[in-house]
Amino acid sequence: MAPLPDIVEITAGAHLPAEHYGARSGTLGRLLKAELPVPQGFAISVDAVRRLATGAPADLSLLDGIFTSGRLWSVRRAPQERSWGGPRAVLNLGMTDAACATLAKHMGEEAAFDQYCRFIRAYALKVARLDEDDLEELVEAEYTNRNRSHAELARALLNFCEDALDEPFPQDPMVQLRNALRATARMWAGTTARLLREARGAPADAGLALIVQDMALGMGKGETGVGLAQFSSVVTGLPGAHGRYQRDGQKDAASGRGGEHYLGRDRRGPSLEETAPLVFRTLQELAARARVCERDEVALQFSVQDGVLWVLDAMLAERSGRAAVEIVVRLVKDGILDRAEALMRVAPGTLTEMLHRQVDPKAPLEVLTTAIAAAPGAASGRLVFSAAAAQAAAAQEEDCILVRHETSPEDIRGMHSAKGILTERGGITSHAAVIARGLGLPCIVGAADIHLDERRRIITLPDGTRLKEGDEITLDGTTGEVIAGCQALSEPDLSGSFNVFLDWTDEFRTMGVRANVDTPADARLARTFGIDGIGLCRTEHMFFEPGRLTAMREMILAEDERERAAALDRLLPMQRADFEELFSIMAGQPVCIRLLDPPLHEFLPQTTAERHALAEAMDLPLARVLARAEDMAEYNPMLGMRGVRLGLTVPGIYDMQTRAIFEAASAVQERSGTRVSPEIMIPLVSANREVQIVKSRIERVSAEVRTSTGQHLDYRVGVMVETPRAALKAGFIAHHSEFLSFGTNDLTQMTYGLSRDDAGKFMRDYVKAGVYSEDPFHSIDRAAVGELLRLAVERAQAVKPAIDLGLCGEHGGDPDSVALCQELGLHYVSCSPYRTPVARLAAAQAALARAGQSAI
Amino acid sequence: MAPLPDIVEITAGAHLPAEHYGARSGTLGRLLKAELPVPQGFAISVDAVRRLATGAPADLSLLDGIFTSGRLWSVRRAPQERSWGGPRAVLNLGMTDAACATLAKHMGEEAAFDQYCRFIRAYALKVARLDEDDLEELVEAEYTNRNRSHAELARALLNFCEDALDEPFPQDPMVQLRNALRATARMWAGTTARLLREARGAPADAGLALIVQDMALGMGKGETGVGLAQFSSVVTGLPGAHGRYQRDGQKDAASGRGGEHYLGRDRRGPSLEETAPLVFRTLQELAARARVCERDEVALQFSVQDGVLWVLDAMLAERSGRAAVEIVVRLVKDGILDRAEALMRVAPGTLTEMLHRQVDPKAPLEVLTTAIAAAPGAASGRLVFSAAAAQAAAAQEEDCILVRHETSPEDIRGMHSAKGILTERGGITSHAAVIARGLGLPCIVGAADIHLDERRRIITLPDGTRLKEGDEITLDGTTGEVIAGCQALSEPDLSGSFNVFLDWTDEFRTMGVRANVDTPADARLARTFGIDGIGLCRTEHMFFEPGRLTAMREMILAEDERERAAALDRLLPMQRADFEELFSIMAGQPVCIRLLDPPLHEFLPQTTAERHALAEAMDLPLARVLARAEDMAEYNPMLGMRGVRLGLTVPGIYDMQTRAIFEAASAVQERSGTRVSPEIMIPLVSANREVQIVKSRIERVSAEVRTSTGQHLDYRVGVMVETPRAALKAGFIAHHSEFLSFGTNDLTQMTYGLSRDDAGKFMRDYVKAGVYSEDPFHSIDRAAVGELLRLAVERAQAVKPAIDLGLCGEHGGDPDSVALCQELGLHYVSCSPYRTPVARLAAAQAALARAGQSAI
Repeated sequence: MAPLPDIVEITAGAHLPAEHYGARSGTLGRLLKAELPVPQGFAISVDAVRRLATGAPADLSLLDGIFTSGRLWSVRRAPQERSWGGPRAVLNLGMTDAACATLAKHMGEEAAFDQYCRFIRAYALKVARLDEDDLEELVEAEYTNRNRSHAELARALLNFCEDALDEPFPQDPMVQLRNALRATARMWAGTTARLLREARGAPADAGLALIVQDMALGMGKGETGVGLAQFSSVVTGLPGAHGRYQRDGQKDAASGRGGEHYLGRDRRGPSLEETAPLVFRTLQELAARARVCERDEVALQFSVQDGVLWVLDAMLAERSGRAAVEIVVRLVKDGILDRAEALMRVAPGTLTEMLHRQVDPKAPLEVLTTAIAAAPGAASGRLVFSAAAAQAAAAQEEDCILVRHETSPEDIRGMHSAKGILTERGGITSHAAVIARGLGLPCIVGAADIHLDERRRIITLPDGTRLKEGDEITLDGTTGEVIAGCQALSEPDLSGSFNVFLDWTDEFRTMGVRANVDTPADARLARTFGIDGIGLCRTEHMFFEPGRLTAMREMILAEDERERAAALDRLLPMQRADFEELFSIMAGQPVCIRLLDPPLHEFLPQTTAERHALAEAMDLPLARVLARAEDMAEYNPMLGMRGVRLGLTVPGIYDMQTRAIFEAASAVQERSGTRVSPEIMIPLVSANREVQIVKSRIERVSAEVRTSTGQHLDYRVGVMVETPRAALKAGFIAHHSEFLSFGTNDLTQMTYGLSRDDAGKFMRDYVKAGVYSEDPFHSIDRAAVGELLRLAVERAQAVKPAIDLGLCGEHGGDPDSVALCQELGLHYVSCSPYRTPVARLAAAQAALARAGQSAI
Repeated sequence: MAPLPDIVEITAGAHLPAEHYGARSGTLGRLLKAELPVPQGFAISVDAVRRLATGAPADLSLLDGIFTSGRLWSVRRAPQERSWGGPRAVLNLGMTDAACATLAKHMGEEAAFDQYCRFIRAYALKVARLDEDDLEELVEAEYTNRNRSHAELARALLNFCEDALDEPFPQDPMVQLRNALRATARMWAGTTARLLREARGAPADAGLALIVQDMALGMGKGETGVGLAQFSSVVTGLPGAHGRYQRDGQKDAASGRGGEHYLGRDRRGPSLEETAPLVFRTLQELAARARVCERDEVALQFSVQDGVLWVLDAMLAERSGRAAVEIVVRLVKDGILDRAEALMRVAPGTLTEMLHRQVDPKAPLEVLTTAIAAAPGAASGRLVFSAAAAQAAAAQEEDCILVRHETSPEDIRGMHSAKGILTERGGITSHAAVIARGLGLPCIVGAADIHLDERRRIITLPDGTRLKEGDEITLDGTTGEVIAGCQALSEPDLSGSFNVFLDWTDEFRTMGVRANVDTPADARLARTFGIDGIGLCRTEHMFFEPGRLTAMREMILAEDERERAAALDRLLPMQRADFEELFSIMAGQPVCIRLLDPPLHEFLPQTTAERHALAEAMDLPLARVLARAEDMAEYNPMLGMRGVRLGLTVPGIYDMQTRAIFEAASAVQERSGTRVSPEIMIPLVSANREVQIVKSRIERVSAEVRTSTGQHLDYRVGVMVETPRAALKAGFIAHHSEFLSFGTNDLTQMTYGLSRDDAGKFMRDYVKAGVYSEDPFHSIDRAAVGELLRLAVERAQAVKPAIDLGLCGEHGGDPDSVALCQELGLHYVSCSPYRTPVARLAAAQAALARAGQSAI
């Protein structure tokens, strides 16, 4: 294959692979093919740009003669992937004394020289790389001198450049262009640019192509301006005109202010739709065509020159997670995407934000002000004005709303602690907005009509009302409304596109998605998320319910076996009732119940006063309660008498739980006629023999219950693999297990020697300093925990190929971890109900990725 | 090769491999070769015995005609390995009415019938397997009837047998013999015998050979009796006559009592040496010859028949650990063993007991009584009379001496808690003696002249003095003396054979043995044990010394960096002084110093009262101390802010420690002219980046100290591999490490998810129930922890073949774990000073085993 040329003209038929000519070139080629009005342009290859940076030759002869008839050109970045960013465009190349004179004929001398001045400044800074401070000093001095004309200013700027460069300001357009290309190429090669793009995920060898594009300047007196338009809502994804338009000609030439328009009609100010309705409608039509040819919702960068519309670029439309789903669902409806492609387009994590709460739409609200809705969902809380105050409030378990002029990385910890964010400044892509969306926090930005006094901790509303620290407010990040007081918030509405989209995941995913559910109430909620069963029912949570705790404590404080048995007898019907409800709700879906796991001392009160109260309530000597609590205290409860160790030491507990499971399952099966398939999971196993012993006790109880109920139950016994030893010995454990479920929380804790509860103090610093590439409790550490999982899977399957393998624990809701589970060949993941949508999408994507479908 | 015959005569030249004819047959063959007087005997093969048990044919025709001229024969067990035990011997086969009549002519009717009676009873029980209770009832009734002669009793017994067997008592000697062989073979095949021998370590297919041996009965009136003799002390191993002799003829024939003799002269009673000096001297001479032919110190089982000495067997002489060493050292001196063989003969664990303390031999002592010295060493403490009381005392950290009539398995926990054991009953192989030797506890048994009232918790001494619970006594388990009061005890004397023996280990072992040493005082002690360096210096212990704790606490409670730096500056000279002393003592041997590991809150007082005192002492607000302590509290300190996490979070601490190490090393190197090679070890690593960061700080400090002192230090930086993740990522960690040292205590805790501190509550039950085959904190779990070690070694060596690999932690003193280290190719183990002798021997044995030398 012949090497691709250093430069090609961007046309409808040109071959413009992104790795050579940048993503933008391809887009422009497609837009041309769709007959959109794109100004003439040339793409310089990544390879040629690299050579330009080092001074090696590149064949750019295609550019010869482009500066005919006073045309001006721009140099625009075209990195291989758009998200990497890069040097900003250099505009109006070809502006010289001669071109300025020609321009003056069309637009008048003052305007022409204003343009010329701006070009010289931009060229001096971006191309000649002159000192910005010196230049700004000069400009400041000149502008202050109100008597100076733009022509005089231009002269001063040219002199300044000549002094600084020790040669005349280039009056040959081709020299300007070549210098601009070389300067841009070098900037990309520089360290600052590299660090910036690497922070955005660019690889070390990321390449930049450049586009030389006609400025398409209209010289008439007609409508002129530049803008950015998208026809879907950033927040909701629903159709609507959004964007900005900077109208030229009306503006104050000296300050650069004025001429700012909304795109569509807006009560807050003038809009393109009103000012130039024809242009607006054309733009709408062009965007619709671009959406088809780009196969996605786009934002058009456009210019209007003497009433003529030019499309300079079409980028992916900015979108919240909710909008992303809405957009792809509509793309599928419109026949533009197929479902698999649609699923690959949405980052699973973004679904979380859709699960946020909302302000009750029917409630009467006092809206204090409305600003930019930057991250959806609603939150109420007390006002705080600093990150530290937010953290303090969170430590007191008080909900708070963090208000700042604007946020910066130093505020991140405070943002984590807040329930919502409100900023006076910034837009939809401001720091606050971006971070809040990442955190799934409701956020409103650009609330310019409130006055914030951070020092005095007061905000003054447009009507003069003052709110101080501690006052309650509510944010609606979906509508942008700041609302007085704490409002009743309703749970998220997951109907519509969300459910349509999620249902598609089930067509493609090969892994089950179960929920971690502790109570019947949780199970009801989880069922609404379209899960495949319960992957982890932590029975201990049932004992914390009022009334049960007493019986539990009696069991723990029992003096002898008789007392203990009596207390267990009282707990049995309560557990049975829970399980009956659970099995009924789950209607035949698998329900995996973990036998009691936490150390028993967790059920005892912690303070002496509470223990005193307990002793009185139970009519026990205080000394006995205290002595028992002291006996049971542990240095490292995580590594102590819990899980199966408890099951072997106080076997009555597991016997009671097993009986409750079997009796409940038998009752529901008999009543409903539907087969109930309980799974019993043994926690914290470190040795095979533990499994054998517990399993044989389970079998004994099973036989007893079968005899008394006459119901045959199709139950399964398995092991929660959460110690490194259990993972390494999975082959042996598999002999006695019908399923293994990886408890990656504890497995991570033990593999790292790191308690999650205690790691909080330094985890953020660790991740920030790159000691850990990411928090291993958020995403499974592939290097070591992943290896243990892999070894366990291999060894278990070698012994029992049909063994059922799952993962329970919050990693089940992390997309990267779900992908790892798919790679490992697990059969299901299980996570908290609210994370199951993420898991379903991640599982679908993982399956599609395995099948060769690539993500966005 | 032709199959070995079912039976062979035991002769000097016979081929008698132990796997076919039992260990004893080989011994007898060798004794015959050495011309010892061994009665004629035949060995029946393991294979033939198996057939006898099932009734399948075996060719025993060699036995035809052995019952000529009234000879009596015995059937004795000969398992493949002596330690497996087995059915007891059946004696005097061939005793019939006729034989009894013949015997009566020689020894008189009463004596002959007495013999006959005893044979019938033994045959009825061991061969005919009649009901023991019925038989004993009869015997009791008969003996109570004083008028009955032994002849009448014999008749009664024969009738009883005939009734029970429904056939006459066999009067054909050959029938008696065949029945005895079959019965013994069947007993070995039975479940009880299998369980018993498996408890002694026998494999499932353990085989038993049988020996048919002439009773060599002398019919004259000369000296007659049976005995067991060994000519080395059980306790010390030093030469001396020990054993017992049961003299026949003088005894009260009816009761079976009397005739008991010591072997050598003894103030407590008659002895063989006095009663039959010629026999005694012959026995001495025979034992010396047996020692040579068995290549070990032996105990001779002998009989004297009408003045003629017969050797029935030569077993390994009973020996304490100390005796074992003494014995093999003498065997080497006498040219009987080479050093390698000698090293393989001593179980490493037995060395521990030699390291016990002793009563100061020059102190004036009030010896209350003297009894059997059953386990060496001395101990002082308060008297307790039950296992529970011993445990209670231990819980209070009070030393106690457990006194019992005799001990049983229920007492084991109490024995663990006691400092020494005293029993009223039992001998050198009693339960108390065996267990105490295993535990390395001083023990005195058979103190029959004290009267123990367990219920009233009082002992009455021979002179009427009473001691009650709580009174102080001292035991000298080496001499058997019970001494009044708590005595000053001196540290063990490790001169003589012990040191000779240990020095031999250094000729063979290929792994280094280092000591875990925390202070200069420890280092001085460790040097006396012939170690190769310090494998682990836990610097935190230095901070607990008075005066330093204050500076440490100031550092912890520092409000800002300046305060912290000031406190660290005060700690620097203290650490430096410690390290200087350490480097001086170790005189150029490697010293591996672990940077601070425990969480800082361990240095703060634990109770509010103590914290109050601290606040006052430091002139700090109490609230600050309390708040700081609360801040620092952790749920699972083992998995929290400790080790390298501390090093990254409060880098000043490691900087200070590193500086102290380098400054101290430079000073000692300059002063002594000897190269000092400090090793700096980073604890609790879980990610490679942790190592990189700490290492670069160490390098910076190193450069600074080199500049200021002008000394070039040959230091090394390494990692303590103690998290599963560090083990799995050892390849990456090796890039930045000059050595890896496995911290198998923590590695075991994390692999099992089990805190050693909290496991005590159930570990014993777990091991007892076989949930864990043994306590993984005592001996490395080969299955999982071992796999992690293997992976780490492979991965580290793949990256850096020359990397130094060691193990620190108490597993370094466990022989099985040391053997594992040898298999893994580690370069050294390190354990507490008192365990280094065990480690040296274990390492030598492991190296010899690798080289093909087999253990005892």
